[in-house]
Amino acid sequence: MEKITQPTMLLDEQKCKANIALMAQKAKGNGVIFRPHFKTHQSLEIGRWFREQGVTKITVSSVGMAQYFAPDWDDILIAFPVNVREMEAIDELAKQIKLSLLVESTEVVHLLAEQLDGRVDFYIKIDTGAHRTGVDASGFATIDQILAAANKCNKLHFTGFLSHAGHTYQAQSADEILRIHQVELEIMQRLKNHYRARYPGCITSIGDTPSCSLGNDFMDVDEIRPGNFVFYDYMQMKLGACPVEQIAVAMACPVVTLHEQRNEMVVYGGGVHFSKDMLHVNDQPFFGQVVEKNGDGWGAPIPGMYVKRLSQEHGIISLPDTHEGKYAVGDLVYVLPVHSCMTADIYGQYITTEGKVIERFRHS
Amino acid sequence: MEKITQPTMLLDEQKCKANIALMAQKAKGNGVIFRPHFKTHQSLEIGRWFREQGVTKITVSSVGMAQYFAPDWDDILIAFPVNVREMEAIDELAKQIKLSLLVESTEVVHLLAEQLDGRVDFYIKIDTGAHRTGVDASGFATIDQILAAANKCNKLHFTGFLSHAGHTYQAQSADEILRIHQVELEIMQRLKNHYRARYPGCITSIGDTPSCSLGNDFMDVDEIRPGNFVFYDYMQMKLGACPVEQIAVAMACPVVTLHEQRNEMVVYGGGVHFSKDMLHVNDQPFFGQVVEKNGDGWGAPIPGMYVKRLSQEHGIISLPDTHEGKYAVGDLVYVLPVHSCMTADIYGQYITTEGKVIERFRHS
Repeated sequence: MEKITQPTMLLDEQKCKANIALMAQKAKGNGVIFRPHFKTHQSLEIGRWFREQGVTKITVSSVGMAQYFAPDWDDILIAFPVNVREMEAIDELAKQIKLSLLVESTEVVHLLAEQLDGRVDFYIKIDTGAHRTGVDASGFATIDQILAAANKCNKLHFTGFLSHAGHTYQAQSADEILRIHQVELEIMQRLKNHYRARYPGCITSIGDTPSCSLGNDFMDVDEIRPGNFVFYDYMQMKLGACPVEQIAVAMACPVVTLHEQRNEMVVYGGGVHFSKDMLHVNDQPFFGQVVEKNGDGWGAPIPGMYVKRLSQEHGIISLPDTHEGKYAVGDLVYVLPVHSCMTADIYGQYITTEGKVIERFRHS
Repeated sequence: MEKITQPTMLLDEQKCKANIALMAQKAKGNGVIFRPHFKTHQSLEIGRWFREQGVTKITVSSVGMAQYFAPDWDDILIAFPVNVREMEAIDELAKQIKLSLLVESTEVVHLLAEQLDGRVDFYIKIDTGAHRTGVDASGFATIDQILAAANKCNKLHFTGFLSHAGHTYQAQSADEILRIHQVELEIMQRLKNHYRARYPGCITSIGDTPSCSLGNDFMDVDEIRPGNFVFYDYMQMKLGACPVEQIAVAMACPVVTLHEQRNEMVVYGGGVHFSKDMLHVNDQPFFGQVVEKNGDGWGAPIPGMYVKRLSQEHGIISLPDTHEGKYAVGDLVYVLPVHSCMTADIYGQYITTEGKVIERFRHS
């Protein structure tokens, strides 16, 4: 830790491995395929920790991420609407690995049929209430058209139905998450029942971290794809999806200025290091929770000590009276991020609390 | 543009060069030193466009950025509180170039005096109302202590007083920006008058883009350090700091899904491509303004067409009735970013509207 000079993303390897093991056991216990989303960690090395738990299929959210993981993984789903401008790269991947895509219109099916040489599997994306992407849950006519168009092309193989209940992130309680989860399970069951006769092998796939963390019953869903749980974060804790002890990443930021007279200190660590994703806690903007140091790792949150404002390179931290005099310029402060996916995406590597460097993918 | 497959930051070189020329002329006309902040563009090549306008001194916001620019620039100010964990790198820079630092406590002066071999210039940071960093504007006792401590060390040379009126970004009107600017000018004048007898050469330095764009009178301030104006962005336009035609960057994002029945479309371009910095427009979250395409560049904003939601990789765009049927999957959409400093920081390069690649610094 003494070598850290700039804002750094720390990873607690033991917590991370425990999170992976717990979700893998839950999937096994429920008899569902575990196809974890790798968009949070985006690291080949962390990917191998999943393989140790028996994982053989993964999910990613871009073609670039699929290319990055392809040397290690031969069964990859790109859970993002097909970006037809990357068709050449998609086709190359299709020839290398078992590649799955998401489809929600006949237009994209036609483009895939025309432009692909390789074979791809596809899921039909279903909107179970998040209203981001997908066919409406009762859109049987659209689904029938997509399937009819795909049936004309022997390079396209229908896998099943896929949903992402992203609206769990707006839930106000664990109960509300479980209600959203239940609705999603019922929608997916209805779809499978409707299409089972014509497509006997078709599966259903769901996967957001709040539902998969809190839910214990997956009814007859076949596959889950949570991602964020690998690290969790303060937002997941606030949602009730994890206890604070399971959060496996923290930012380490150098203190650069103390303003104790106004209960503040400033760290090197701004919007370009944290991302600007935020919560409102007690009606105040909240960009990260400061935790106690604990050996080379971290311990409990410090009440009232949080990142209250971010500019490009500065983080302004609320310094409660209880902690006046405890920090000096040059100290490192550890901060649990609000949204680990967004924060991790900024870095090319993690440093473990044991000092090991773990490389990750960079998209741009 | 046909080669663009992923979210890309486009730069209109002519608009950018015109922005640089205009600010350089304003500085010249007012007889002030122009020490532009390079934290927005962070590019050696764009830096050379400033040199063509006679610029010889620059501002950056991190030690890493100073290292990046040091091969081209021999007079660099790091306008960020000294991060003492990077003392070794600061000392190396001090031996290579004329390096200026910001100081706001005797504690940091002592650390610099103890640990530096090279000579550095320093400004005292003054808080003129932004309440982020700096000595209170009437904190003569603190300033005297800092100067007394620095006077004991012949490696530390006092340059003058520096402020950043970052609270102009929260202003509700151009008039309010000008009022903040006026207060800042008066504070800086008072300080110079107070210390002029003891420090005859001491200068004053101010610099935020709204003040420097709207202000025409800099009284007896000696130096200005605006940065964002090199690109401007939608936030600056909303503040009244620039007309929309001066915004020199836009995001190009591929359309991946149309949802015309709910007046939306989805692009490949999410929080990891835009940053999550936002405005509220008509009480709604607002992450970027869609503009018309115009040859290889862009034209006017399309009323009602804006980025309304961002997840990690998805951008959800409001599609007004007037533009239904005008976009297809695979088209590129051009979006003016809300905050160009934050968006640009995500990328390792810009693509000009003429297709040229311009490299930039990456901090992590």
